[in-house]
Amino acid sequence: MTDPLVIFTPSGKRGRFPVGTPVLTAARQLGVDLDSVCGGRGICSKCQVAPAFGEFPKHGVTVSENALSAWNEVEARYDRVRGLAEGRRLGCQAKVMGDVVIDVPPESQVHRQVIRKRAEMRPITLDPATRLFYVEVAEPDMHEPSGDFERLSRALEEQWQIKGIEADLDILRKLQPTLRKGDWKVTVAINTGHADGRQRVIDVWPGYFEDRLLGLAVDVGSTTVAAHLCDLFDGTVLASSGVMNPQIRFGEDLMSRVSYAMMNPGGDAEMTRAVRAAIDTLAREVAAEAGADPGLIVETVFVCNPVMHHLLLGIDPVELGQAPFALAVSESLSLAARELDLGSIHPRARTYILPCIAGHVGADAAAVALSEEPQNGEALSLVVDVGTNAEILLGNRTRVLACSSPTGPAFEGAQISAGQRAAPGAIERVEIDPVTKEPRFRVIGCDLWSDDPAFAAATAATGVTGICGSGIIEAVAEMRMAGILDPSGLIGSAEQTGTPRCLPEGRTHAYLIHDGTGAGGPRIAVTQGDIRAIQLAKSALYAGARLLMDEMGVDRVDRVVLAGAFGAHISPRHAMVLGMIPDCALDHVSSAGNAAGTGARIALLNSAARREIEAVVRRIHKVETAIEPRFQEHFVAANAIPHATDPFPELSRIVQLPAVSFNAAGSGGGEGGRRRRRG
Amino acid sequence: MTDPLVIFTPSGKRGRFPVGTPVLTAARQLGVDLDSVCGGRGICSKCQVAPAFGEFPKHGVTVSENALSAWNEVEARYDRVRGLAEGRRLGCQAKVMGDVVIDVPPESQVHRQVIRKRAEMRPITLDPATRLFYVEVAEPDMHEPSGDFERLSRALEEQWQIKGIEADLDILRKLQPTLRKGDWKVTVAINTGHADGRQRVIDVWPGYFEDRLLGLAVDVGSTTVAAHLCDLFDGTVLASSGVMNPQIRFGEDLMSRVSYAMMNPGGDAEMTRAVRAAIDTLAREVAAEAGADPGLIVETVFVCNPVMHHLLLGIDPVELGQAPFALAVSESLSLAARELDLGSIHPRARTYILPCIAGHVGADAAAVALSEEPQNGEALSLVVDVGTNAEILLGNRTRVLACSSPTGPAFEGAQISAGQRAAPGAIERVEIDPVTKEPRFRVIGCDLWSDDPAFAAATAATGVTGICGSGIIEAVAEMRMAGILDPSGLIGSAEQTGTPRCLPEGRTHAYLIHDGTGAGGPRIAVTQGDIRAIQLAKSALYAGARLLMDEMGVDRVDRVVLAGAFGAHISPRHAMVLGMIPDCALDHVSSAGNAAGTGARIALLNSAARREIEAVVRRIHKVETAIEPRFQEHFVAANAIPHATDPFPELSRIVQLPAVSFNAAGSGGGEGGRRRRRG
Repeated sequence: MTDPLVIFTPSGKRGRFPVGTPVLTAARQLGVDLDSVCGGRGICSKCQVAPAFGEFPKHGVTVSENALSAWNEVEARYDRVRGLAEGRRLGCQAKVMGDVVIDVPPESQVHRQVIRKRAEMRPITLDPATRLFYVEVAEPDMHEPSGDFERLSRALEEQWQIKGIEADLDILRKLQPTLRKGDWKVTVAINTGHADGRQRVIDVWPGYFEDRLLGLAVDVGSTTVAAHLCDLFDGTVLASSGVMNPQIRFGEDLMSRVSYAMMNPGGDAEMTRAVRAAIDTLAREVAAEAGADPGLIVETVFVCNPVMHHLLLGIDPVELGQAPFALAVSESLSLAARELDLGSIHPRARTYILPCIAGHVGADAAAVALSEEPQNGEALSLVVDVGTNAEILLGNRTRVLACSSPTGPAFEGAQISAGQRAAPGAIERVEIDPVTKEPRFRVIGCDLWSDDPAFAAATAATGVTGICGSGIIEAVAEMRMAGILDPSGLIGSAEQTGTPRCLPEGRTHAYLIHDGTGAGGPRIAVTQGDIRAIQLAKSALYAGARLLMDEMGVDRVDRVVLAGAFGAHISPRHAMVLGMIPDCALDHVSSAGNAAGTGARIALLNSAARREIEAVVRRIHKVETAIEPRFQEHFVAANAIPHATDPFPELSRIVQLPAVSFNAAGSGGGEGGRRRRRG
Repeated sequence: MTDPLVIFTPSGKRGRFPVGTPVLTAARQLGVDLDSVCGGRGICSKCQVAPAFGEFPKHGVTVSENALSAWNEVEARYDRVRGLAEGRRLGCQAKVMGDVVIDVPPESQVHRQVIRKRAEMRPITLDPATRLFYVEVAEPDMHEPSGDFERLSRALEEQWQIKGIEADLDILRKLQPTLRKGDWKVTVAINTGHADGRQRVIDVWPGYFEDRLLGLAVDVGSTTVAAHLCDLFDGTVLASSGVMNPQIRFGEDLMSRVSYAMMNPGGDAEMTRAVRAAIDTLAREVAAEAGADPGLIVETVFVCNPVMHHLLLGIDPVELGQAPFALAVSESLSLAARELDLGSIHPRARTYILPCIAGHVGADAAAVALSEEPQNGEALSLVVDVGTNAEILLGNRTRVLACSSPTGPAFEGAQISAGQRAAPGAIERVEIDPVTKEPRFRVIGCDLWSDDPAFAAATAATGVTGICGSGIIEAVAEMRMAGILDPSGLIGSAEQTGTPRCLPEGRTHAYLIHDGTGAGGPRIAVTQGDIRAIQLAKSALYAGARLLMDEMGVDRVDRVVLAGAFGAHISPRHAMVLGMIPDCALDHVSSAGNAAGTGARIALLNSAARREIEAVVRRIHKVETAIEPRFQEHFVAANAIPHATDPFPELSRIVQLPAVSFNAAGSGGGEGGRRRRRG
């Protein structure tokens, strides 16, 4: 008689096994992805399977009710204590008795897919760098003396095929009492995530450890530090939070922080302490929000721009402030979290920092590449991470280019007369009627437009406080579409535009969006200076993208992705009217949200992704805008706000731009001078 | 025309090279062991060679005066600044012009032999785990962005074939200013000594670093901590020093320290702090003695017994105090010295700790095996490291056995009525005239015997203060040879022995060696209690050795080595008369001095020796005396002080023992009760 046939779904892996083989054993021998922490001892219940019975013509088998051994005492006890769902068996207890089809439900797979928040998000396969292993360790024997650690090591090799573990002195210190307390059964957390193949013992607990390990993905931005607390068992985000980067008190933008470090001995150390303390606080906060123990955070991943990267590591960023912008270290780093003074999380937690691409293009850009994958598609993708500096990636599976472009803070609402950060009360959407030239707008925190009768009441709490980055972009684009702005960026006078909202301001004009002064609020207008600031920012962004397109030898891209916390709020249509991004079919322009944060989360949950991005970064070709004459040419050429005519076929499909032209009313016009880099 | 023939001595390696090939290049291509730190740039002068000219019939060549290129400017400058010995050339500057014979002097070899202090010492080939490498690093390039660390890494790979270096944050922090200060030329100290093949950057200095790196070999004994400061370039011992182990205040012997840890919460941490502070102080002291900077100590090696091992590492030794005597960790350890709070040495110094053999046989015994190599010979060697516990090794290249035997402190002069530690004034040698039964002796610090007329004057400064371990052994053996002691260990009365020096003491007798009471000094006698203490100690030692011989299935050994700081002072003849060691040809009994310390020094200077002892320890078979009934049998049987007759043929060759027999005068006789283990 032949052995019974065992077929696993969804993998389709199949094989014959002797009667009495546990399902878990069969799965392991076939390489089926079936989880187990306790190693088949009926403790962890992670190996739950769903056997199917009846006729399976597709598989050519008939499965009888007796295809598996009867429900046993271990399963009965587990069901009593914790409950086992209908139709489920413990894979380590159920034994093969006849031909059988066994489904491995997603939650029983080691490498399960993390549930995606958005359909277009890259799927994440769970494979964290740190995992739990339950082992039974041999007791000491006077006749065969060996250390407790060596016997633990042997048990992990025999029971889990994990060879050559390493442990620090703290583990060696707690190992003996832990083994004895657990009666020689312990759960070990092992980190295997680094490229060197080392297997570090992170912790050891007596008996079977019930809790789940946690991970923290952190995006250290110049302005904001954002953290996501993840469950390393199923990949869910348990809590997210952000705080202002406390380094802001040393300088608003990157270059002023580099200057602070250069001018003040010990200034870099001061900024390092500040950001580390903020991260540690943030870790405690997200854990508190999730009702979790921050001491169970065993993995952390950081993404950041090069200056933040160096300051986080405690490296003086001075070299990043001057050509040739040399990084101290560019490749990925794996280190102990305590080296970053993260005292609130697990004392032996590990930290992974994504590689930097170049002195201006950091680990945050690498994380964007990991999340948005321009390197994996056939289509030529332009990925723009919009911030004080824009990181730009252009490529497909053949070649990927990267650059950084100094857009300045205008897109974030800074250096704009009525500008403010995105916060409740800030104007975020603007529409201008092309006939009446009257505006209406929406503010953050309220879904109503300003011309809705209920608007005033609905925004009474916050008022209308200013205009944020996405609001100013829409305002400028709408002004252009309404003929208030000519292609050179000049605001026309009331006479020229036919609207009294165009008010003289010095030798130029401003367009009034909202006058709250009657109610003690602000007067919100778009000034000629604001237009110039936006023109400079969008020119820089566009010039960077064009430079990469030149380098790639293309005139068009297939897909544009606007990334960054701010990028997510930009209206693709307005961005294209403004000329922020190259011409592209509007339905091929998308927002990726905080792609850097997503990339950090991918690297946190899937250690293979770390190897992947390390390899990708090595092949990304960096284009340095600062020394490239064509960048300046593109920058100057991009100053205008385009006509919806060639070379912008897509733009002409979505909008008709008026062919107005105003004479410069004063010195506010023109180029506004050459911008200092990253000023 | 064929290329010139280049012959290197002493290796005999030869090959033909194109005219103009630098001698260093030829040596490297042939695998000749010729040192260079600067990589052939004429800076370090470590590649000095001595070309020979004239007829070489042995090699079949005639070497003309023009066989090498003329003395060049680099050599001339080096000679002006530092001096180049007559006949020497810099291997990186001198170029091959014709057939030539080139001698590589010992000091130019990377793997040079360390000068031995004693001829019978194992030769040490210098191959330290940490070495210096001078490299020229590529400057940063905006077009090919890479971190300074990655370019350093590439330079080491290209110039020294060192792949995949690792560095901690402190190195990354100092790398950028160091590279710029050294104008992209730096000297890097790299540790490659761990079995995992990792290459750790220990430090980086601008330009060519002139100083020599240092290493510290430390033997942490229960009583004494001894350290040897070594030059890692030539292996010389620059200074040695020892201090009392400050843990003595928590307990004289190992078991009382384990008890202290058990009885006092935090007691183990207290002892850990004490010994680490002592080691750190000792490091500063030996460096000061050598006029060296302790900050250049980049390598440390520790040997110690298991309890000291655990306390040094900060591991509670409680499990070592009870069966089954489980070690927390038994294999070798490689860690950062700062984990042991050694704050005075280099901040990134590495520490290597030899493996332990078992719960009673520690890294000190492994070090003895490394130094005395019982595992490498054909002859069956018995190596005894005599201390409060004796570690015993028996074996040859086929098999090695080990055990530990609880000798107690009697051999070190403790628990002896007039006993004292080895120090000036202590009696260390004793002779008793077999006819007159009169003793004479020598004390530490004076070369005269006590019957020399000048003795009193010569010892006036110290006086005669007591008797140390080697003194009591000689006294007891001499008493036996003079017929003052019978084979059972009883001291005869004055009547029985015919000497008034045998004085009644309670119900037994004592033998008076020296009465200094007249001059206000002590009265030094050997009491019946002293004899019993020595009998217990020597029985334990002998029983351990016999147990191993039983296990090995032999009745005789070919060679006995007495090791340990104290073992070095034992007279082999007296040890054999006493029955401390098995019968063996006297000229095959030797003293190895502080073999554990020597083993530590070998592991410090030669990293291959670390792999060697790790492999040896894995194959040493441990015999546990505590649970072996035959140990007790041997122990009881060994109580007597032997007759020089069968089964002791060697003993009868060296001494005639009187066949006296005294009646027991009281309860001091007999077995003295069963000894508590490690009491």
